Amino acid sequence: MTRIETLDTTLRDGTQSEGASLSIEDKLRIIAKLDALGVTYIEAGYPASNAKDARVFEEAAKLNLANSRLVAFSMTCRKDCPAAEDEALIASAACCASTITIVGKASAEQVERTLGASKEENLRMIRDSVSFIISKGKEALFDAEHFFDGYAQDRDYSIAVALEAAKAGAKVVVLCDTNGRAMPYDVYSAVKDAKRCLEEAGFEAVVGVHMHDDCGCAVANTIEAIMGGARHVQGSINGYGERVGNANLLTIIGNIELRMGMESIGRERCKLMTSTANYVAEIFNRSIDPGMPFVGSSAFAHKGGLHVSALSKFPSAYGAIDPEDVGNLSHIVVSELSGRSALLAKSEEFGIDLEGAGVDLGNLAGKIKDLECSGYSFELADATLELLFREAIGEKVTFFRLESFRVITEKHEDGKVMTEATIKIHVGDERFIATGEGNGPVNALDMALRQAITRFYPQVANILLTDFKVRVLDEASGTDAVTRVIIESSDGKSNWATVGVSANIIEASWNALVDSLAYGLIVKGMRNNG
Amino acid sequence: MTRIETLDTTLRDGTQSEGASLSIEDKLRIIAKLDALGVTYIEAGYPASNAKDARVFEEAAKLNLANSRLVAFSMTCRKDCPAAEDEALIASAACCASTITIVGKASAEQVERTLGASKEENLRMIRDSVSFIISKGKEALFDAEHFFDGYAQDRDYSIAVALEAAKAGAKVVVLCDTNGRAMPYDVYSAVKDAKRCLEEAGFEAVVGVHMHDDCGCAVANTIEAIMGGARHVQGSINGYGERVGNANLLTIIGNIELRMGMESIGRERCKLMTSTANYVAEIFNRSIDPGMPFVGSSAFAHKGGLHVSALSKFPSAYGAIDPEDVGNLSHIVVSELSGRSALLAKSEEFGIDLEGAGVDLGNLAGKIKDLECSGYSFELADATLELLFREAIGEKVTFFRLESFRVITEKHEDGKVMTEATIKIHVGDERFIATGEGNGPVNALDMALRQAITRFYPQVANILLTDFKVRVLDEASGTDAVTRVIIESSDGKSNWATVGVSANIIEASWNALVDSLAYGLIVKGMRNNG
Repeated sequence: MTRIETLDTTLRDGTQSEGASLSIEDKLRIIAKLDALGVTYIEAGYPASNAKDARVFEEAAKLNLANSRLVAFSMTCRKDCPAAEDEALIASAACCASTITIVGKASAEQVERTLGASKEENLRMIRDSVSFIISKGKEALFDAEHFFDGYAQDRDYSIAVALEAAKAGAKVVVLCDTNGRAMPYDVYSAVKDAKRCLEEAGFEAVVGVHMHDDCGCAVANTIEAIMGGARHVQGSINGYGERVGNANLLTIIGNIELRMGMESIGRERCKLMTSTANYVAEIFNRSIDPGMPFVGSSAFAHKGGLHVSALSKFPSAYGAIDPEDVGNLSHIVVSELSGRSALLAKSEEFGIDLEGAGVDLGNLAGKIKDLECSGYSFELADATLELLFREAIGEKVTFFRLESFRVITEKHEDGKVMTEATIKIHVGDERFIATGEGNGPVNALDMALRQAITRFYPQVANILLTDFKVRVLDEASGTDAVTRVIIESSDGKSNWATVGVSANIIEASWNALVDSLAYGLIVKGMRNNG
Repeated sequence: MTRIETLDTTLRDGTQSEGASLSIEDKLRIIAKLDALGVTYIEAGYPASNAKDARVFEEAAKLNLANSRLVAFSMTCRKDCPAAEDEALIASAACCASTITIVGKASAEQVERTLGASKEENLRMIRDSVSFIISKGKEALFDAEHFFDGYAQDRDYSIAVALEAAKAGAKVVVLCDTNGRAMPYDVYSAVKDAKRCLEEAGFEAVVGVHMHDDCGCAVANTIEAIMGGARHVQGSINGYGERVGNANLLTIIGNIELRMGMESIGRERCKLMTSTANYVAEIFNRSIDPGMPFVGSSAFAHKGGLHVSALSKFPSAYGAIDPEDVGNLSHIVVSELSGRSALLAKSEEFGIDLEGAGVDLGNLAGKIKDLECSGYSFELADATLELLFREAIGEKVTFFRLESFRVITEKHEDGKVMTEATIKIHVGDERFIATGEGNGPVNALDMALRQAITRFYPQVANILLTDFKVRVLDEASGTDAVTRVIIESSDGKSNWATVGVSANIIEASWNALVDSLAYGLIVKGMRNNG
């Protein structure tokens, strides 16, 4: 089976994306995750350029990676400077990584206009830099920057750059679409040509590619490059990178393994794709686009009535890939477009027998539709939906009755801010008043509610609120609009999301909070005991 | 110049995406926008299937579209039923659209397993349905569902389906990758083959394609199809659609016009791409992925120090396309990775001369970095950043001094919720106390603050808060975490965004609110007067 090497550049190119800022610990956690995923190379930064990246390589060396090799990014030596006297190259050669990427220009126009060097001097810089790195006992990868643009303008020079790097001993010559504007049909022929030239010259260098997604073709360009003979591909998790981003390495891996009949990380490790995507997104503090291929939460979701009913006949009819292959879950979306069959499929997911309990499905669908019209969204908030279903079959899903709450936030002249919540509730026949302080209204309400119920439900201590999302629904009216709050919670074993809607953000938060605890105490509690 | 027809299916396939729910008015607004963009066809729904879509076609007929034709979606007649007796087809033929899409199966396996019909009966259904629609004076487009999967398994049958539709008079035979699993190299050869077969049989039907993005290749597959001879392409705005989504029509158009040297909507109308993407996203109530090709807010952003300094030398070095061509703005991201040159470029964008004012750039960069470390993000909140820059050059950017505020939210047993904010501020030598009621804390604070300052700044009435976004930064600690609030505001002429950060959501909102009004009153006010 054809094997394709993978290089992940999330920690180098990926950190160039807007808003990205990773600590040393963040980078080390991602390195460990990428090693488990089994990429061939992890490009972890540019140690010669900053002390933080240098520390990352020192610490990463102690991780004893099982599958991946660490790569440090570096540049060709400066113009008119021997490689052996270039401080950045010397620092790169001294770092802990066994493999160094040397980036150099592969476009005649770039060499002359941006670098201000002669074409010959650029070749000297490449030759000298690659040789220097190899002379220090390292493996060298050569990133041929602007290769595809250069190839279109002056093919011979771009090919000469590739040959020069290979001749100097680069293990991989990586053809880069730095501007992300190559079209798939051009990539195929250029890669094929470069590979042929390297082979004819007798070099053993592997041809690699590094694509940017400015024209939305980075993944397909990588696929076309593989068809043209590339055996090393680069990309980043979730496509993080400058501007539009880099090629999404997970999408590439999914295609190599599941569509092209080739091998990269291996089919078994593909099951880690979805968790890797989410883990890295978490560290980047971003949400995953629900429509991300293979790993997005909608990637295997079905909504249209046609497709949902066809699914039961012929499971593979509308899904390209088995979601289990990539560690994702197929889930059917409940919404006003769906009917009876979608409700039943969803309840089956929850392990609830709506029909057996004699629930009027039309009634329940109507109730859900009304809530959706008022701003509720159950697509993220499965737990609130499950509570509705359980209520419909007659289960008790409330654990107290609210009399009233009051939340006060004060900011004083000295800048100090204080928030206090007082709630009055009834559990059974007893009435409780509790006051909680917090660093915000939701936190204060959470504190007060937990304090009031903890005697009856001590297991509430196991429930942690992990995320809190707010969406203003009628954006045209600004702060005077309906607010949807989604709270994500965890008991350490599993996670769930609940939703609350109100014109008042505090009330919306309260509703989501109450559902979060109700789900954790009643549904999860029941499962744990049952 | 080669001309490519475009069909937008945002209102049909796009509404199958998770969370989408459009009113009749929403659909009409999108139709008007697509007409201005100049797509050839607008597929606006399935009028035979639901009354809402039927209304959309009735109302849309009154819009007098200037550039686009409306298309109604429909299906082949039922098995063993003549087209002339099929209720859905009869209803489609009677609707207001002049063009009807007929979808039929183009995969032998699908015909037998999902439809449970013979291959011959499926051809009859296609022939009969297309002929029926044409006999009613309509133009017919034929969607060959599952064409590419079918072609891979039983090429001859899939080609026979395409020929049958063309023979019956379909104006366009649209080859669909219904599962989104075709690879670009397969698309090119299959399209080329289908086109050759149609030509050899003497049919004039145009070959079209309709791609889904499950493998991340929908745009590139469409490009490869064009190279193989397709002259009609389908997609949706922002790629909205079931599962991972459809091919992003704007990305396709950008590539046709700006990369492939062909024509679709014309170069001039490409300037509407970014506004169309944002407008449709707004109606779908979604945010645009900042990394969306051509139209995303990061699509032309630069962050790495290397690229920012190279830009001043050679503007086209790192940007594939001029952002003005697609109506997008290039903007340079300020972040801890950037240095002096990024700060200066950003201040130039604001029209502020930091160097001329003798600002210590190292100091200012340090201040920005500290704020970013504490959770601020200026990438969305340009207005807060501009206030910082103006403060640095000695301008006055505050318009009052806060003594204190207090916000109370109460929920009573009858379910009623009340929020009231009291603020005490000083403007010049005067002290003001004002109380505002609102349907939430930010609204109440906004009301109180406006009431207190309106005598000094009556123009505050022109400032409207248009959006409010909340992000919990340290997600591991749930409601006990730092909160970042971004407020978007408008004075009817322009929009701006401000940011506030605090452990307390009320204080974070307050900070963003104060900056919003400060920017509107001081910066905008100054510009309007100057």
